[in-house]
Amino acid sequence: MTDVAIVGASMTQFGQRDGWVSDLLAEAGQACLEDANVAPHEIDHLYVSNMASGEFEGQTGVPNMLAHDLGAIPAYTQRVDQTSSSGGAGIYAAWQSVASGASDMTLLVGGEKMTHCTTKEATDVIASITHPVEYKHGVTLPSFAGLTARLYLDTYDAPRDSLARVAVKNHKNGVDNPHAQFRKEVDLDTVLESPIVADPLRLYDFCPITDGSAALLFCPVEVAEEYADDYVRIAGVGGATDTHVVHERADPTTMGGVVDSGEIAYEMSGYGPEDIDVAELHDMFTILEFLQSEDLGFFEKGHAWEAVEEGVTERDGDLPINTSGGLKSKGHPLGASGVAQGYEIYTQLVGEAGPRQVDAEVGLCCNVGGFGNCVITTIMEAGQ
Amino acid sequence: MTDVAIVGASMTQFGQRDGWVSDLLAEAGQACLEDANVAPHEIDHLYVSNMASGEFEGQTGVPNMLAHDLGAIPAYTQRVDQTSSSGGAGIYAAWQSVASGASDMTLLVGGEKMTHCTTKEATDVIASITHPVEYKHGVTLPSFAGLTARLYLDTYDAPRDSLARVAVKNHKNGVDNPHAQFRKEVDLDTVLESPIVADPLRLYDFCPITDGSAALLFCPVEVAEEYADDYVRIAGVGGATDTHVVHERADPTTMGGVVDSGEIAYEMSGYGPEDIDVAELHDMFTILEFLQSEDLGFFEKGHAWEAVEEGVTERDGDLPINTSGGLKSKGHPLGASGVAQGYEIYTQLVGEAGPRQVDAEVGLCCNVGGFGNCVITTIMEAGQ
Repeated sequence: MTDVAIVGASMTQFGQRDGWVSDLLAEAGQACLEDANVAPHEIDHLYVSNMASGEFEGQTGVPNMLAHDLGAIPAYTQRVDQTSSSGGAGIYAAWQSVASGASDMTLLVGGEKMTHCTTKEATDVIASITHPVEYKHGVTLPSFAGLTARLYLDTYDAPRDSLARVAVKNHKNGVDNPHAQFRKEVDLDTVLESPIVADPLRLYDFCPITDGSAALLFCPVEVAEEYADDYVRIAGVGGATDTHVVHERADPTTMGGVVDSGEIAYEMSGYGPEDIDVAELHDMFTILEFLQSEDLGFFEKGHAWEAVEEGVTERDGDLPINTSGGLKSKGHPLGASGVAQGYEIYTQLVGEAGPRQVDAEVGLCCNVGGFGNCVITTIMEAGQ
Repeated sequence: MTDVAIVGASMTQFGQRDGWVSDLLAEAGQACLEDANVAPHEIDHLYVSNMASGEFEGQTGVPNMLAHDLGAIPAYTQRVDQTSSSGGAGIYAAWQSVASGASDMTLLVGGEKMTHCTTKEATDVIASITHPVEYKHGVTLPSFAGLTARLYLDTYDAPRDSLARVAVKNHKNGVDNPHAQFRKEVDLDTVLESPIVADPLRLYDFCPITDGSAALLFCPVEVAEEYADDYVRIAGVGGATDTHVVHERADPTTMGGVVDSGEIAYEMSGYGPEDIDVAELHDMFTILEFLQSEDLGFFEKGHAWEAVEEGVTERDGDLPINTSGGLKSKGHPLGASGVAQGYEIYTQLVGEAGPRQVDAEVGLCCNVGGFGNCVITTIMEAGQ
């Protein structure tokens, strides 16, 4: 198995953007090649993480369009879809392409264009991620989040405020991320008094609808050592599913896909939860940051809310989580989000995070599809 | 790089089917596991080749549904989309998952459900594969085929009859394929007198709209050697793009993606065109069988039509092409087609093709996305 490095990263401004997803992909892809000082013709494989360009824009074959726009033809290209975890699945696919020896230079670009749709159009597509026995009866992702949040608060005696503190923290981090959709602090009262969406969760417990793109460039570590000033090594990566029908889960406050993908990534890397210095978690809903940080072993089950209250996950805490602002304030362009998590960890590990910079040698991303239906966990370490 | 084997294969009846794509995927996936005598919990990775379940059915997250239906949770799962070559891209992804060491048992299931759509709904989605500067002005895939066929006939002094002979041959082969959509012979006059679609091509020069699914099971060769009665080894596999805008190609009678993906697969395998005993080519339009068989080096440029006239590509010829009946008579459920090509070559190489059986040790599949926008070529050999 070839040891795999990331040697370049980029992301576009997230938010409401003009143009189409192909424009955003080209912008991120080109910036990533420039960041790594690699020419388009050097790319062997080009992966595009995108959930639904066909549904959102009536355009398919987007990877071919990107190969054309970047000048990367005849590079092999393919779309990677794993719903809201398409970006993490793209990292896994790009890693496999280099680790298998099929490619010596793989560009991954994730992106989605959504804000031109009405909210109903966008949420109809997102609802179709889940099982028809649930979503066709109105039990969509926000409902699962509300039900699970209520269960969590009741089971672990956690105060409602603790969820709001996730939103407050991530908005605070987002202020220092020039690419974030929302760069404004919010206080506890603002979150707690925002309109109810799925009780007990309110508007500020949810990530927004976003346009955006992010990119990462992969090659063998031995190539990175030769030419790159700095690089990040993929120490471990794993993916796993949980039940597609959420009501079949024995305990909805545990996400089996997070536990299992984390175990694979930990075992491959030789690291454990105690070795992680910084993490990007999939805070599509505030409650998800609690679940992932427990299911990945950062905190004991039922205790993540205390860690958040104590400031452990703040930028100056022992384990900073979502230094980028997370999906909550950075935004969540479906196919881009997992790649943008990788961008943040890469940027932290090579020491280019500016005012967001934390002290980190090992970082982790966790990208969640659906309501934990499929999860990819990636562990990266600073190159030697 | 781990050496990769295929140890099981299946396909459903192709044609007009009831149910949804998830039903078809489950049918093929389960049959494949039974063929290989492997239990669902033994699967590490599960790939689904599918172009457009969201557009055709309003359902996304289909890989998670399949993991659920097969009882394969917590296997990692992901959708592979490369438009009409999604199946070939799935073979490449499954190969990478085993070759990289990420998975010791990978199930690939390709499928599409299309016949419940109106022809306009289905062709609108298919048209969106190509570049908007072309398809939005009415230059869709059938138009490219017509224009290219005219150019080929004029440039190489080929008679119109030669194209029709591809349809006649593939329909004849399809009669012996119990899974084929059309199991009836057609004669030259029927093809040549069918309604014009894109001059000079007529209805019988085109593949139909089809529902169906096919599956392949991959593992390391050393695992296959231990437990499988017979297996096929992936000797070489490669993918490559050509211009997304077809009118930018210097010579539309040559498909750069076929040439380049073929070169990668030949080099990796150590085989050349002269070593191939049987091939499945992407005959979405009759003209494409000529182009691929030339661009893969089976015949000199401009001479494939003579080979077809001389019977070289018949089942009892020197190089049987599309023994399955091809897309032309077997049908073309987009995401399934490349996997079904693999099914046919696997079946031929393990000697289970019944009345379609030819004498073969080495076989090749070529799966074409769009009008050659992205192509995957796979070379397989019978296990030792």
